[in-house]
Amino acid sequence: MTASSDEGMWLLDAPPRDYLRKQYGFELTDAWLKNAMLASVRLNSGGSGGFVSPDGLLVTNHHVAADSAQKLSKPGFDLYNDGFYAETRDKELKCPDLEINVLQKITDVTKEVNAAVKPEMKPAEAFAARRTIMGKIEQDSLKETGLRSDVVTLYNGGAYHLYQYKKYTDVRLVFSPEKAIASFGGDVDNFEFPRMNLDVAFFRAYENDKPIKTPNYFKWSETGPKENDLVFVTGHPGTTQRLETLAKLKHRRDYTLPYTLYRLRTLEAALSQFGMQSPEKARQAGTDQHSVANARKAFSGQLQGLLDPAIIEQKAKSEASLGDAAGNDAAFKNAIAQIADIQAKYREFEKPFGLLETGQAFFSPLFGIARHCVRMADELPKDPKDRLREYRPSNLDSLKFALFSPAPIYPELERAKLTASLTFLAENLGGDSEIVKLVLAGKNPASRADELVNGTKLFDPAERKKLVDGGKAAIDASKDPMILLAKAIDAEARKLRTRYENEVEEPERQAYAALADIRFKALGSSVAPDATFTLRLAFGTVKGYEVGGEKLPFHTTFGGAFDKSTQLGGKEPFDLPKRWLDGKAKLDLETPFNFISTADTIGGNSGSPVLNRDGELVGINFDRNRHGLVRNFVYTDLQARHIAVHSKSVLEALRKLYPAAPLVKELTGK
Amino acid sequence: MTASSDEGMWLLDAPPRDYLRKQYGFELTDAWLKNAMLASVRLNSGGSGGFVSPDGLLVTNHHVAADSAQKLSKPGFDLYNDGFYAETRDKELKCPDLEINVLQKITDVTKEVNAAVKPEMKPAEAFAARRTIMGKIEQDSLKETGLRSDVVTLYNGGAYHLYQYKKYTDVRLVFSPEKAIASFGGDVDNFEFPRMNLDVAFFRAYENDKPIKTPNYFKWSETGPKENDLVFVTGHPGTTQRLETLAKLKHRRDYTLPYTLYRLRTLEAALSQFGMQSPEKARQAGTDQHSVANARKAFSGQLQGLLDPAIIEQKAKSEASLGDAAGNDAAFKNAIAQIADIQAKYREFEKPFGLLETGQAFFSPLFGIARHCVRMADELPKDPKDRLREYRPSNLDSLKFALFSPAPIYPELERAKLTASLTFLAENLGGDSEIVKLVLAGKNPASRADELVNGTKLFDPAERKKLVDGGKAAIDASKDPMILLAKAIDAEARKLRTRYENEVEEPERQAYAALADIRFKALGSSVAPDATFTLRLAFGTVKGYEVGGEKLPFHTTFGGAFDKSTQLGGKEPFDLPKRWLDGKAKLDLETPFNFISTADTIGGNSGSPVLNRDGELVGINFDRNRHGLVRNFVYTDLQARHIAVHSKSVLEALRKLYPAAPLVKELTGK
Repeated sequence: MTASSDEGMWLLDAPPRDYLRKQYGFELTDAWLKNAMLASVRLNSGGSGGFVSPDGLLVTNHHVAADSAQKLSKPGFDLYNDGFYAETRDKELKCPDLEINVLQKITDVTKEVNAAVKPEMKPAEAFAARRTIMGKIEQDSLKETGLRSDVVTLYNGGAYHLYQYKKYTDVRLVFSPEKAIASFGGDVDNFEFPRMNLDVAFFRAYENDKPIKTPNYFKWSETGPKENDLVFVTGHPGTTQRLETLAKLKHRRDYTLPYTLYRLRTLEAALSQFGMQSPEKARQAGTDQHSVANARKAFSGQLQGLLDPAIIEQKAKSEASLGDAAGNDAAFKNAIAQIADIQAKYREFEKPFGLLETGQAFFSPLFGIARHCVRMADELPKDPKDRLREYRPSNLDSLKFALFSPAPIYPELERAKLTASLTFLAENLGGDSEIVKLVLAGKNPASRADELVNGTKLFDPAERKKLVDGGKAAIDASKDPMILLAKAIDAEARKLRTRYENEVEEPERQAYAALADIRFKALGSSVAPDATFTLRLAFGTVKGYEVGGEKLPFHTTFGGAFDKSTQLGGKEPFDLPKRWLDGKAKLDLETPFNFISTADTIGGNSGSPVLNRDGELVGINFDRNRHGLVRNFVYTDLQARHIAVHSKSVLEALRKLYPAAPLVKELTGK
Repeated sequence: MTASSDEGMWLLDAPPRDYLRKQYGFELTDAWLKNAMLASVRLNSGGSGGFVSPDGLLVTNHHVAADSAQKLSKPGFDLYNDGFYAETRDKELKCPDLEINVLQKITDVTKEVNAAVKPEMKPAEAFAARRTIMGKIEQDSLKETGLRSDVVTLYNGGAYHLYQYKKYTDVRLVFSPEKAIASFGGDVDNFEFPRMNLDVAFFRAYENDKPIKTPNYFKWSETGPKENDLVFVTGHPGTTQRLETLAKLKHRRDYTLPYTLYRLRTLEAALSQFGMQSPEKARQAGTDQHSVANARKAFSGQLQGLLDPAIIEQKAKSEASLGDAAGNDAAFKNAIAQIADIQAKYREFEKPFGLLETGQAFFSPLFGIARHCVRMADELPKDPKDRLREYRPSNLDSLKFALFSPAPIYPELERAKLTASLTFLAENLGGDSEIVKLVLAGKNPASRADELVNGTKLFDPAERKKLVDGGKAAIDASKDPMILLAKAIDAEARKLRTRYENEVEEPERQAYAALADIRFKALGSSVAPDATFTLRLAFGTVKGYEVGGEKLPFHTTFGGAFDKSTQLGGKEPFDLPKRWLDGKAKLDLETPFNFISTADTIGGNSGSPVLNRDGELVGINFDRNRHGLVRNFVYTDLQARHIAVHSKSVLEALRKLYPAAPLVKELTGK
């Protein structure tokens, strides 16, 4: 953070109290922070949310709820596109595999973790020692508290914190608007402002078939924010790369991002071609299409950022000044050089690693399921400390919850996705590669995808459970082609993973830890760690910006959505739901719809509560503008803004257009 | 061609008369062939057609006419999508840059060409000597006859023929249906059967402002073909790779095709994102989108084919048996080894060559225009024999006709296309590459595209003409950013081209010539050369096929289109034009719409006349099915079919739905 900027996705146990006091005259109290922590929610579908009533009601984005909405839909009952409202609690729909986490406590465990890793250890030993101690801390915590316990790596290895969460797996859908208004403008307007999106959805958390009690919740503001208001965003930013070295960023620019975009465009093409085949197929591919398009747009923005010489120069300067702070000593130079060397090594196997171990060659949940079945048979009999990290005891419940999900999987869609990704594998490794031959088993990608999808029984959760419960014997006996595929490539995939751990992950972690030390010494804790999909606090000012000489106000209105739709012929993605067209006259068209602030957010912050000084919810963050796309690497508040749904617009829509009086009453007491 | 198959895209001066006589009892007369040659037309927009009246009327596909239709459209007047009909000749619309060629004569010039190239020459000398002799033959022919004269390389270097064409540059649009019926099913049904497409359009050729006389034309059949009829296809298949060696095909599979698909998916994503922004932008991007999607689907099919072990095996066997025919002598082994070596070399610079010299980094006509202006200033003052081949005197008129086209170019579309392709350049060569830095000139791709498009004056044909007429001095003085870009990269681009000529083109040509000799000796002229976008004759049988146990009849009907549209909710691309929905009752729904035959076609054959034994036009070829996608490499008639619009369906639609009585009268005399 520079001395006078709103940069920072702050840890909740190390917030910038002084800066807020000096800059905004705001006293961040422990009570405020505690309520923010206990009312903020992380969703395992990859977003954030917040409790907004004492009865477990939580708000997030429509696009965060999309995964569950899609899984609850079926041919002819399309609540992802058509919306949903449960007028009474008994009609709330239980999501097949949505888990939410509520952070209870943060403990610094850096010393314990570092003490277990001795300087003389080779990378493989260091990696194992670190995994062991992290697993032990988590397991001890789980035993002691019963809470979900994760040791989180911060500052790319500079610090380790234990995060303890309450976890809920009975989460029910309460309200979700039509997709046409939730993401009005679709991919075209994604990462753009002005925006007019009702990107909200409500869930309720249950335990023992009853709504949970949430005494810590955010009061819904009837008025929302004014211009120049100080606002806060609590949520779970996914990943940023601000503390990465120049060599790492150039590696991203020249290798990782081009490959990623090549992959995403391949998948997007396959999905959009599939969806065009019929309205039902479009429905099936809907959420996959959205997430791939969203990722493509985000990574495209990152690439444009890293191809901007001004940004590269800024990063080079900041690296040089860190070096100056360290007197350009050997520790600094070694760390920088080591990270550069690691990239050169990583280049040699980054694609095979991504394709086989990350599973990019097999773009289907069916493969992911098969792999877990195969690996659990090998891993679960092992001592916990020797297991692959995802099979640590403290993670097993969450993993099985997802693995045995009854969410529907559509054969034709999986065939199309597998054909595309198997083809992508062959494109990248070549038709004569041993791995490609092994995977394709004498067929071309399209025929091989047919064979796998037609032959597998893993569509059925009972079948998965049978294989997991049956352990090694069941896996050895299985003739399921997807299981056979996962088995066939497992040795090679594990080899690549070990290589990644020893040649990239562990040495990078050590080098970044050295850089973090230098930074702590030079700058104290005035720099927040990069995002890690854990709870953070950001803050900023509600204000508009200029673009091309034009001043954009800090908020849009309902009227703007109707105007834009008319201008663009009402054609998808600028069509409005019938309810909105029919109900236009009922609405106050001047109602503020979406607003922006300078607070520091990134992907994962979707659904984050936006709060005012009093800790009331004034908005629900759902996006950032195109100028904010470079936030992975640098913070700027010149034009970059995050975008939120205005709290008032939600009430106005619920009151005038939706038959949702009970929901409004729960939010406002009226 | 195997002894009993319909394989072959035959040269018109070497047709398979014996086979036709033996297999079909058909006597291919000189008169039949002559009429076929003089009534067949090549369009510079990349397709085929045929004269169908003595007054210069010609039929082709809607998708071949698309380029002209798009160029004739403007906001609010969208004849590409909405269709067009000129009821009287004075309303026929002159296309801005459509040139058609009608083949007049073929002359074998292999001996002259080969005599000029001495065995002791190095590749660069050989290449220059070959270019010189080809240019001389063409220039002499042009001087002598006034005809467009092209020396065509056949059998990848095994033979050289001089093709002399009559050329027409005043071509006017007469009729074009709505895109929704011309390409009903859009990208989804492209390369699929059953199909229901009215993929036809009519032009008329003019000279001196009068329709030309075309005594050689195809009589329009009122009945069309019956099942098991022998039919012929005359047209201009673009490229096939059937005579390529296994090493070359594997190079395509593992390098060229993956790169090409990566590129096409990138462009397709950019175009479809642009088109979604508004209906007008969708209109602007329409034809680009179609051609990129079509290429993507064709190349995807090729890749699936080459990833099919059965096809690779078939090619390996065929190469081995050619070796056996040559007694596996040194000439054979050397040629095979040389072609393999060339691929290894080509790999090192294939991408930069494609990006810079082929221009794939600059996906905009504006760059192509700038490059021609820059290069003409350098090339035209040279002795013709030393010029780059596209600037040979016999080609200059056609080149300038295209270069000075008044067709509209849309700034926002070009900005989107350039952003995508400049980004693709950086993705492939990396942000620190000198070429990328030179091209991007200190900006990121998006900003650089803005700068180029906002600054260039090349939208205006008068500006282009001024630069070309002004020669070197005008180019040196120009501050146009697109001209400056073309100049900046020209040295590097030319270097890559020279490298390609000397290390790939010329040595490959020599090696293939050696293989062609072996093949001629072993098999005589029983193998047709690979396609070269020159006139060929194919033939086949009208018949259905089986797929997944289901028998597909040899034709579809009008009724099928209505049924499918209803089934799929009438949603794009399965929507039907209002005229068709309103006029359904007037139509005989049993009218055969599209039909298939085993004749051997490929891209470039679009718009090809399909003829019966009497030389009457019974259909207009427009596509092949998915099984035909591997025809680049192998011919099969098991399921592979080309697809044509039935001649009867055109008459039925014109009579019942369109106010086109004069056109029907011109076609049928009635």
